[in-house]
Amino acid sequence: MVQIVTDPILKVPETAHAIEQKRRILEAASRVFRRQGLHATGMRDIAAELDMHAGNLYYYFRNKHDLLAFCQEEALTGLLEAAEEILASDAPTGERLGRLIVVHVERVNEQTPGSLAHLEVEALEEPWRRAIQERRDAYERVYRLLIERGVEEGCFQTNDPRVAAMAILGALNWTVKWYRPGGRKDASEIGREFAELLVAGLTARAKSRDGSH
Amino acid sequence: MVQIVTDPILKVPETAHAIEQKRRILEAASRVFRRQGLHATGMRDIAAELDMHAGNLYYYFRNKHDLLAFCQEEALTGLLEAAEEILASDAPTGERLGRLIVVHVERVNEQTPGSLAHLEVEALEEPWRRAIQERRDAYERVYRLLIERGVEEGCFQTNDPRVAAMAILGALNWTVKWYRPGGRKDASEIGREFAELLVAGLTARAKSRDGSH
Repeated sequence: MVQIVTDPILKVPETAHAIEQKRRILEAASRVFRRQGLHATGMRDIAAELDMHAGNLYYYFRNKHDLLAFCQEEALTGLLEAAEEILASDAPTGERLGRLIVVHVERVNEQTPGSLAHLEVEALEEPWRRAIQERRDAYERVYRLLIERGVEEGCFQTNDPRVAAMAILGALNWTVKWYRPGGRKDASEIGREFAELLVAGLTARAKSRDGSH
Repeated sequence: MVQIVTDPILKVPETAHAIEQKRRILEAASRVFRRQGLHATGMRDIAAELDMHAGNLYYYFRNKHDLLAFCQEEALTGLLEAAEEILASDAPTGERLGRLIVVHVERVNEQTPGSLAHLEVEALEEPWRRAIQERRDAYERVYRLLIERGVEEGCFQTNDPRVAAMAILGALNWTVKWYRPGGRKDASEIGREFAELLVAGLTARAKSRDGSH
């Protein structure tokens, strides 16, 4: 899937250089956010981290809000691409769901700046709001689809695939609130333990239903 | 358990009237937060919702930060009391964990204003920070203890009770981001479905280990 990046303000495709600069800014911003918290971080702190003139930073992002929105959009686009790839693969459903879980925990905690979970969609202004909400809905849909598939196949059981998907996504997204790089376990290990717990939660009841224990 | 409420700024017990006023303010604030988002809500909007002079509101809370911190402290204290009660009961471990899950989803979405999950501990100033972190740690400990108990009893299986506890708490806390009062399902129903999924996730592997399926 080729990703077309369009500046949501100017509505024109951005230059490769601008996109690269924005990503470099996000990485720096992410370090500052982790160090001093989202609320306490200003555009000046981010510029200082980059050794960049604040004026240059404002060329790429009008304010912190824009920066966070771009960050969230980037994160969601990447997750959605990975999810669509996993959805299209022909591995067993439980394995695909587990893989999706591991990839999510890895990405939101290691690859993407940790602000995915912090920003409220409600607090976003157009045109970010719609772009991010659409990606978020599509991403949730992949979880729901996999769970529904598992139910059809008889390997999963749940009353409500949507509620189950939200439980799983909540567990995954919440990791950005407590995960610390260099801690006792890395994101992949945590992802694998989450996958085991959550896939088992869907699987177990299918098995108990047919009386095998 | 008798709850002693101490004003964290003045370090003196508050009058019953002041506590009642603060709770009334929290309820109003919660309605405004839900309606227009946390970030977009100012102290003036909360005062307007209460038909109160802004000056009176500032008598109880110096700013929005104080109000949110009080809100989070209240919520955590209530959750902790409920959790300790459930921990002390003699119901089977899986049932107790399930009960804890249902109570949490109910409380954060219906009884307590929805700001529990929004406020970063990192963004809190002392003395709130310590008070809230202590309660949060104690509350997480109850989950960990119940999971460890289940593992000892052989009814649960997990590599890491702490990681399992964080997965469960993440699923629960995230509900404040998507739960809507008057929606398709109420908080109790969602809580029960979460409990089924999450307790099954811990239980299933204990059963598969002893080869019963």
